[in-house]
Amino acid sequence: MLIVGENINTSRKRIAEAVEKQDAQFIVQAAKNQADAGADFIDVNAGTFVNRETEYLCWLVKTVQDAVDLPLCLDSPNPEALSEAVKHHRGEPMINSISLEEDRFQGLLPVITSQPCKVVALCMAQTSMPTTTDERVAVAAELIEKLTNAGVALEDIYVDPLVQPVSVDVNMGNAVLEAIQRIMETFPGVHTICGLSNISYGLPLRKLVNRNFLALATARGLSAAILDPTDKRLMATLLSTRMILGKDEYCGDFIDAYQDGIISKD
Amino acid sequence: MLIVGENINTSRKRIAEAVEKQDAQFIVQAAKNQADAGADFIDVNAGTFVNRETEYLCWLVKTVQDAVDLPLCLDSPNPEALSEAVKHHRGEPMINSISLEEDRFQGLLPVITSQPCKVVALCMAQTSMPTTTDERVAVAAELIEKLTNAGVALEDIYVDPLVQPVSVDVNMGNAVLEAIQRIMETFPGVHTICGLSNISYGLPLRKLVNRNFLALATARGLSAAILDPTDKRLMATLLSTRMILGKDEYCGDFIDAYQDGIISKD
Repeated sequence: MLIVGENINTSRKRIAEAVEKQDAQFIVQAAKNQADAGADFIDVNAGTFVNRETEYLCWLVKTVQDAVDLPLCLDSPNPEALSEAVKHHRGEPMINSISLEEDRFQGLLPVITSQPCKVVALCMAQTSMPTTTDERVAVAAELIEKLTNAGVALEDIYVDPLVQPVSVDVNMGNAVLEAIQRIMETFPGVHTICGLSNISYGLPLRKLVNRNFLALATARGLSAAILDPTDKRLMATLLSTRMILGKDEYCGDFIDAYQDGIISKD
Repeated sequence: MLIVGENINTSRKRIAEAVEKQDAQFIVQAAKNQADAGADFIDVNAGTFVNRETEYLCWLVKTVQDAVDLPLCLDSPNPEALSEAVKHHRGEPMINSISLEEDRFQGLLPVITSQPCKVVALCMAQTSMPTTTDERVAVAAELIEKLTNAGVALEDIYVDPLVQPVSVDVNMGNAVLEAIQRIMETFPGVHTICGLSNISYGLPLRKLVNRNFLALATARGLSAAILDPTDKRLMATLLSTRMILGKDEYCGDFIDAYQDGIISKD
């Protein structure tokens, strides 16, 4: 499971304050904490600053990569911000995210094809959000076709099946879980990715629901997740789930994480 | 998910003491706690008292059913203890468990067919424990055939696929999860049941591993579990998993359990 650390996002108040004050130390610490906890990519998002997103996203890229030797997940729907941010990025970034929405697709495709990168392909249709598994798989198929036709390798595509709240429609959990499995089986080599928190919108005990959703999605073959790797209970769920599924030889990762304090002890 | 409360078992020191002292109040409280927490059946096991098992098991049946209006899961491999215990049981018990071991099968079959009951069919072959999914499904098929030939309804059979530790063999988790799904698909109408704790034998954070195993087994279609329903974190996992899987209309069971304090708040 590839882990994208989600914490450096200006929708979080303390991150927004640090970005506005250009408090590099705070951002670096947030990045290091996630790297130490096992992040493979660090997500950076400055989307709440509508007029200064490009400037701030570029600053985040430089600030984080000056301190942490990890690739970043450049998180924006804005082609201008992304095309500038990739110029500052060292190594191969993940671009988050393209979708079938016409403006977004046309705007982002040149950024994606201008250098080696991974790309999150969000299962959002031109004019609607999918609700069923079939709709998600259909949107995924169209995104995969268009991206590979444009020269993107299947192995660089991370399909996000668009998690929606079970509190709104109790079928939304199954729809996403089924979609993960169907997409992984239908397009061998492609990856799947998702965030967790939408599943629990409107419910109590959101972190618990998110954790259990991650376990179920992992069992269906999810290849990557955008999450807070410093949440030790979430990491405990992830590592124990991998182990139960036979993906942790001699249970070594789980036992090491326990001994190193990466996962919750209760 | 049918919940069999596992707490009244003389392998637990305080239960053994209460049984020896014939402390009905302690046993009744243990039964009531499990009933209040959502148990559908109360397991009773006096197996550690080799010479007095029959007497103690009968006392447990009477003591629990005098106080709690639930059927019991009569837990013993001993035909004599079970044939006496069923005489004291009101309603339809669950008998736990028969297997393909020759003496056990021949000894228990008359007890099972002498009155309406549910029966746990443990995937233990005549002379060996299964390791792979295929072996489990083969043993399940033979047990189901023999039991239904003897007149047991398929709907009364609860196949236990025999959970074994991932610390001993990292494939054991997947083998059981696959077996649950295959058995449920191959014999429509039959049930599956298991205990949880064997999965985590030899590992740290056993309760966490057990919880996540329950989530994954639930997603594969497990119909019943033998567990401690007073473990609020375990129940939180179970109820949130059901909800994510679309089995909790309007998320009502989950929200009620949260409000009633049945599940952990953290």
